[in-house]
Amino acid sequence: MNETEQGLLDWWKTDIIEMEPGVIRYRGYPVEELIGNVSFAQMIWLMVRGDLPTEGQARLLDTALMSAVDHGPQAPSIAIARMAATCGIGLNNAMASAVNVLGDVHGGAGEQAMMFYQAVRDRQQQGTSLQQSVSDQLDQHIAEQGKFVPGFGHRFHPVDPRAPRLLQLVDEAAAAGGVSGEFAHIGRQVEAEIAARKGKTIPMNIDGATAVIYAELGMPAPLARGLFCLSRSVGILAHAWEQTEQGGRNKGPIPRQFTWSYGGHSNRKVPESE
Amino acid sequence: MNETEQGLLDWWKTDIIEMEPGVIRYRGYPVEELIGNVSFAQMIWLMVRGDLPTEGQARLLDTALMSAVDHGPQAPSIAIARMAATCGIGLNNAMASAVNVLGDVHGGAGEQAMMFYQAVRDRQQQGTSLQQSVSDQLDQHIAEQGKFVPGFGHRFHPVDPRAPRLLQLVDEAAAAGGVSGEFAHIGRQVEAEIAARKGKTIPMNIDGATAVIYAELGMPAPLARGLFCLSRSVGILAHAWEQTEQGGRNKGPIPRQFTWSYGGHSNRKVPESE
Amino acid sequence: MNETEQGLLDWWKTDIIEMEPGVIRYRGYPVEELIGNVSFAQMIWLMVRGDLPTEGQARLLDTALMSAVDHGPQAPSIAIARMAATCGIGLNNAMASAVNVLGDVHGGAGEQAMMFYQAVRDRQQQGTSLQQSVSDQLDQHIAEQGKFVPGFGHRFHPVDPRAPRLLQLVDEAAAAGGVSGEFAHIGRQVEAEIAARKGKTIPMNIDGATAVIYAELGMPAPLARGLFCLSRSVGILAHAWEQTEQGGRNKGPIPRQFTWSYGGHSNRKVPESE
Amino acid sequence: MNETEQGLLDWWKTDIIEMEPGVIRYRGYPVEELIGNVSFAQMIWLMVRGDLPTEGQARLLDTALMSAVDHGPQAPSIAIARMAATCGIGLNNAMASAVNVLGDVHGGAGEQAMMFYQAVRDRQQQGTSLQQSVSDQLDQHIAEQGKFVPGFGHRFHPVDPRAPRLLQLVDEAAAAGGVSGEFAHIGRQVEAEIAARKGKTIPMNIDGATAVIYAELGMPAPLARGLFCLSRSVGILAHAWEQTEQGGRNKGPIPRQFTWSYGGHSNRKVPESE
Repeated sequence: MNETEQGLLDWWKTDIIEMEPGVIRYRGYPVEELIGNVSFAQMIWLMVRGDLPTEGQARLLDTALMSAVDHGPQAPSIAIARMAATCGIGLNNAMASAVNVLGDVHGGAGEQAMMFYQAVRDRQQQGTSLQQSVSDQLDQHIAEQGKFVPGFGHRFHPVDPRAPRLLQLVDEAAAAGGVSGEFAHIGRQVEAEIAARKGKTIPMNIDGATAVIYAELGMPAPLARGLFCLSRSVGILAHAWEQTEQGGRNKGPIPRQFTWSYGGHSNRKVPESE
Repeated sequence: MNETEQGLLDWWKTDIIEMEPGVIRYRGYPVEELIGNVSFAQMIWLMVRGDLPTEGQARLLDTALMSAVDHGPQAPSIAIARMAATCGIGLNNAMASAVNVLGDVHGGAGEQAMMFYQAVRDRQQQGTSLQQSVSDQLDQHIAEQGKFVPGFGHRFHPVDPRAPRLLQLVDEAAAAGGVSGEFAHIGRQVEAEIAARKGKTIPMNIDGATAVIYAELGMPAPLARGLFCLSRSVGILAHAWEQTEQGGRNKGPIPRQFTWSYGGHSNRKVPESE
Repeated sequence: MNETEQGLLDWWKTDIIEMEPGVIRYRGYPVEELIGNVSFAQMIWLMVRGDLPTEGQARLLDTALMSAVDHGPQAPSIAIARMAATCGIGLNNAMASAVNVLGDVHGGAGEQAMMFYQAVRDRQQQGTSLQQSVSDQLDQHIAEQGKFVPGFGHRFHPVDPRAPRLLQLVDEAAAAGGVSGEFAHIGRQVEAEIAARKGKTIPMNIDGATAVIYAELGMPAPLARGLFCLSRSVGILAHAWEQTEQGGRNKGPIPRQFTWSYGGHSNRKVPESE
Repeated sequence: MNETEQGLLDWWKTDIIEMEPGVIRYRGYPVEELIGNVSFAQMIWLMVRGDLPTEGQARLLDTALMSAVDHGPQAPSIAIARMAATCGIGLNNAMASAVNVLGDVHGGAGEQAMMFYQAVRDRQQQGTSLQQSVSDQLDQHIAEQGKFVPGFGHRFHPVDPRAPRLLQLVDEAAAAGGVSGEFAHIGRQVEAEIAARKGKTIPMNIDGATAVIYAELGMPAPLARGLFCLSRSVGILAHAWEQTEQGGRNKGPIPRQFTWSYGGHSNRKVPESE
């Protein structure tokens, strides 16, 4: 092979997948050996991390993924999926328009919570106590990014029913030795510190809880968003499909008999051109 | 509640998710009971089908999902994910641009194979033999849509290593009574009929094999594409993430020192305007 | 250059743009000569058609583009743009999620109307009269695709105020010799034939009128959708930007105090696993 | 109308478009009066700004839009459009996947250049000289964001042929009194200051030049990206359409005979599960 060809192949270099005619290997494992021996959650781990997880790691990842699939059609992602499904495009396109909006605000809280937890852990590793580390990081967060702490509090749920159950499973995994449990401690201390400062509990929500899991599993923070996209894609698909079966054409956000309020300039004539 | 409000709430009616403050139920099941008891694959089934699958159904769905996650950066979806990851957008956006192209050609073969199999099964249910049903459906397909049969043959792999292994698992599930096995028979007969006509085997590929699974599981054909999008989203995420870690800015399709061939009009002057 | 390199450059061969260091030519014209001498509409024509339009052609294209920019936030594309703008993604991403839904139903009527008109014209070119060609094509359309004729009738507007004005401009252009006017005749005859059959007028709408223009301009039918996407992107941008300035986080389709109707299975317990 | 209905209509309140049956007004102007009297560029201005532009403003906006339509298939956005067009999706979907990647890196330089210029202008308005303001802002930029200055320098073009021509048109518009010309001065001083520091000129590029225009026109900086998306959508459409006519299925980034380099783990066996 000459230099041009080598440069060309290297332009698309990857450690993830190797192929020859009749051969597919992911991270070195032949696909036909993986099939039937490895679950979807294990495969996800293998693809993003490079090695197979332990049983305990796989179970926690599976749980984080299954817990965040949907929050109903008031969420913009789900509403978009349903409207898109009535516009004459494929399910793949409806899913894309919806996944696309899982941005910093709609899909980023888990990633941001992980960064918060990891910053606390970094402080601890400098020798600061858990309590002090959380307090210092909270001070820094409020100073730099405002008082809203990602992963805590919910507009709709007084207590998010998913969070305590997820933390319970982390505790069980830590007791079994599968994970350290240090991020569950951090998450709970953040909740306690906020409560102490505010005089009332602002409970951990789904994003705060899945961030605990992803941090326990050693995921880089940006993958919290990527994995959330995989998870929420399930709800997006389910709603796009239900809407497809319900039918409808060009479904708008509110029933057809309503027209929005107009707050702009009153009726005027187009001026004569100069 | 007055009529307007009711009409408003009904505009977004769904059977998938019910919420009250502090309560989330999917298809009637409280989320905190599902968490820890139900796998990601079971949750996917529950969301798109309305009820929990049996263990055997869940295992087959899990396998179909884990088997199709990636086919490398020569696939446009994966190349798009990697290029997108260098353009200064979020992982969710890179995933969206990529999932979006899983259309009729890049993501539709599974759905089309299912429609073929289901049409064969419909012929059988009219009393025609398997062999005749396949032959008749193949005639009709070729007449209407040309000689390319979705789910069979591969540009790169003489034998797609995923397909025989997936069929083997369907056989095992059928032996255990979890599925009927009828679509595995249909798929194999299609392969045999094509081979008899061509004088050489055009082996079933991943799309043909996952279509067997989804048909055995009673999925509607369009969900074959939707579920493939969930599956391939894993590879899309893994490649977008690997590219993010490799770095790069505005990665083009070929190395930077190359400029495309130009085949258009030679250099010319803009005419004086009239 | 060796064969590998040539094959590589030819893989991305294009007639649209030629570049060397310091040189950019579109369709053979140096960019610095185009700038200041050619309007945005002329540039759009040059890019998709390969040559510069006449003044009359450019004016009609410009008008078709400016006439279809927006139809308000009840349209799913606009609602999606506004919701997306509150999710923490860029304006480019909000535009993408919205343009993406301009599919067969939401963005395809112009393309479909053009195909209808062109089929009538093909019948005329076989020697059939305009009246008979329209009647025959209408019969065929209804038999194959149902009674809804793309480009005619509107859910909201008794008469779409854009259509008669656009047709008037086509008439003026035809009188000036810029276009033939044959598709304006066809469009009006379709309207007349539908009215004769139904006993009431189903007036031409914006899609039927822009399809007349694009057909007069010799555009291939699929470009009617592509050009509509350019046009509607303006409204999409304007609404995404207005929403950005209004603020909001994760804007859902209906006000926050409302929760959708749930029509699914009542509360039930997760079964013990097998 | 009761309070619920009013809240509902206000949820989608807009100043852009007003509709009643048979009536469409943009920013107060009836659509049928705009059609034929207002160009596409004027309409774009009206939609995003709220009022009609002067002739001079419209001409500059038109020029900025027509100048940035395409930079060839090495740009990820264009490569994505072309690959997408072979995947069995609509032109709208191909456009969406492509526009989506015009993010901070691929589509944000104009917006960032505008923010730089506006920061210089703010310094001037505090009474600092142009020269000092540019120098101070450059110091601050380098300290906070590194030495790469958005809008200056080009990987491929020693001199970007679009930039000097665009600046010339701004000068002409300023001489005619249509714009102030202050941002052209700022842009040139940034170029001069960088040259003085480096000992060689890093010439203004298309992003730096369109940022001058958008700043002269009083656009908010984020609209520089939005307007660039409108502009580049033209090239995206042209390439998607050319690829559609060329044909192809699942076009990858490099010719089919090449397989990427694999740099990952060597062939290994899947471990027995625990």
